[in-house]
Amino acid sequence: MRLQIAVVGASQPSQDAANEAEAVGAAIAEAGATLVCGGLFGIMEAAAKGAREKGGHTLGILPGNSRLDANPYIDCAVATGLGDFRNYLVVATADAVVAMPGRYGTLSEIAIALTLGKPVVGLGSWEIEGVLEAANPEEAVRIALGHKY
Amino acid sequence: MRLQIAVVGASQPSQDAANEAEAVGAAIAEAGATLVCGGLFGIMEAAAKGAREKGGHTLGILPGNSRLDANPYIDCAVATGLGDFRNYLVVATADAVVAMPGRYGTLSEIAIALTLGKPVVGLGSWEIEGVLEAANPEEAVRIALGHKY
Amino acid sequence: MRLQIAVVGASQPSQDAANEAEAVGAAIAEAGATLVCGGLFGIMEAAAKGAREKGGHTLGILPGNSRLDANPYIDCAVATGLGDFRNYLVVATADAVVAMPGRYGTLSEIAIALTLGKPVVGLGSWEIEGVLEAANPEEAVRIALGHKY
Amino acid sequence: MRLQIAVVGASQPSQDAANEAEAVGAAIAEAGATLVCGGLFGIMEAAAKGAREKGGHTLGILPGNSRLDANPYIDCAVATGLGDFRNYLVVATADAVVAMPGRYGTLSEIAIALTLGKPVVGLGSWEIEGVLEAANPEEAVRIALGHKY
Repeated sequence: MRLQIAVVGASQPSQDAANEAEAVGAAIAEAGATLVCGGLFGIMEAAAKGAREKGGHTLGILPGNSRLDANPYIDCAVATGLGDFRNYLVVATADAVVAMPGRYGTLSEIAIALTLGKPVVGLGSWEIEGVLEAANPEEAVRIALGHKY
Repeated sequence: MRLQIAVVGASQPSQDAANEAEAVGAAIAEAGATLVCGGLFGIMEAAAKGAREKGGHTLGILPGNSRLDANPYIDCAVATGLGDFRNYLVVATADAVVAMPGRYGTLSEIAIALTLGKPVVGLGSWEIEGVLEAANPEEAVRIALGHKY
Repeated sequence: MRLQIAVVGASQPSQDAANEAEAVGAAIAEAGATLVCGGLFGIMEAAAKGAREKGGHTLGILPGNSRLDANPYIDCAVATGLGDFRNYLVVATADAVVAMPGRYGTLSEIAIALTLGKPVVGLGSWEIEGVLEAANPEEAVRIALGHKY
Repeated sequence: MRLQIAVVGASQPSQDAANEAEAVGAAIAEAGATLVCGGLFGIMEAAAKGAREKGGHTLGILPGNSRLDANPYIDCAVATGLGDFRNYLVVATADAVVAMPGRYGTLSEIAIALTLGKPVVGLGSWEIEGVLEAANPEEAVRIALGHKY
């Protein structure tokens, strides 16, 4: 079974952060893991784009009722109808989380992952005790994959 | 975007029902739709097997915390940790539901789908007003796909 | 700890059904149990009114984000923001369910309760195998309370 | 309708933090608001105890299936069966959140509240941008109540 690595971050990131997210997605795909995200825009879309362009799998867990909300790089979309509550599911199904710049939704995903005992790798995100800091996208994915599941 | 058709039914079905579920899964794959199910055994596994053998996509939404619980024919697994509550998600993400023989979990999925206004096609399942009855697996999938989304 | 008895049914019931729901709520309060419902109108409001007029406690589990949606007879309201998904919570927190006339939302609550192994007493509701039929409100509550928890 | 103020924090707090939680609960009750918490021990129990001793109302939203898990100061208990997912509901139903010392579960509740746009008052908890800091229990409750809802 393929590992599932979640990438979480802002829906309106800087261009630099979006570029890094794309590199994270690419590295996840190259490692043979599935990218999990919230299925919408910004960091979510950039990471999914990076993964798909390397032939990887992408799983998007959406807040609304329609899969049409998913960005075009999601190949497996789940429409939950649960609103922000769906953040919990993004994390719950992941083996590890790569956290990128974002605001409170991102922070909630970091905290939920830590509550559930899942490794969280930070790449320019909230500085929270227990988050493993990475210097670049490749290192972030290497750390995320380095845990034995 | 591919349609998503959920198949719901017993985890310990009769051999006949399992055979029919496999044919339903196959027909879903042949139509180019994604099979959605609860990811475990019985009807869920037979339908996923049928879909995979025709090269289709399968999405399993699991009650527990581990994707290792998924049957071997699931290629996109979501571990929710939500218990029976996950039945709601199986239905919420589907465009239509094919209901096969099952007990109360199956009935709850039929009722949730009807509550959400989604078409439900019955194939030897609970007889509930509003469920569209099909005579065989191919017809069930044809009816499920026949709705314009 | 007080027992919690859920009353489920239509938001637009007949006057007869509303009258019966009020009597069910009154009987729950007189037995010292807490009435649980979806917090809105119709059967939910009538049952809560009946309970409150006998000095009972009422717990309303709402689909939306605002407790202002609750009917005036709810003294403990939970705003879930989960939409129809909240039906699961109405049932999950109850020791037993009294099912009254209603449509698919009511059917889903009956089915979820049976899935979770909780007793369901029917009073003019869906006829589902496993539901315990009652002839009148007092009998419905007596049966619901008669299970040892 | 009474305001609902959530108090979140560790299940194994220091004695000082427990004493402060009790004072927070008392101040919530004296203001005529309902205390919401996760229903278990530590900060949750101390706050509920403080509220009840002032004649206040307490609502506990539990992770498990049994209301027997609730601490003895909860008068309205909701058994969700949703595990840590229930943290979302504690916050979703509150008008404001008082955050006390705690670990990742507490952090997730702070972040979810901020995601949902609800005021969060910190009393010795995580220092997160956007949290309103209070110097003592009475001030914490005054700030929490000071928002117009």
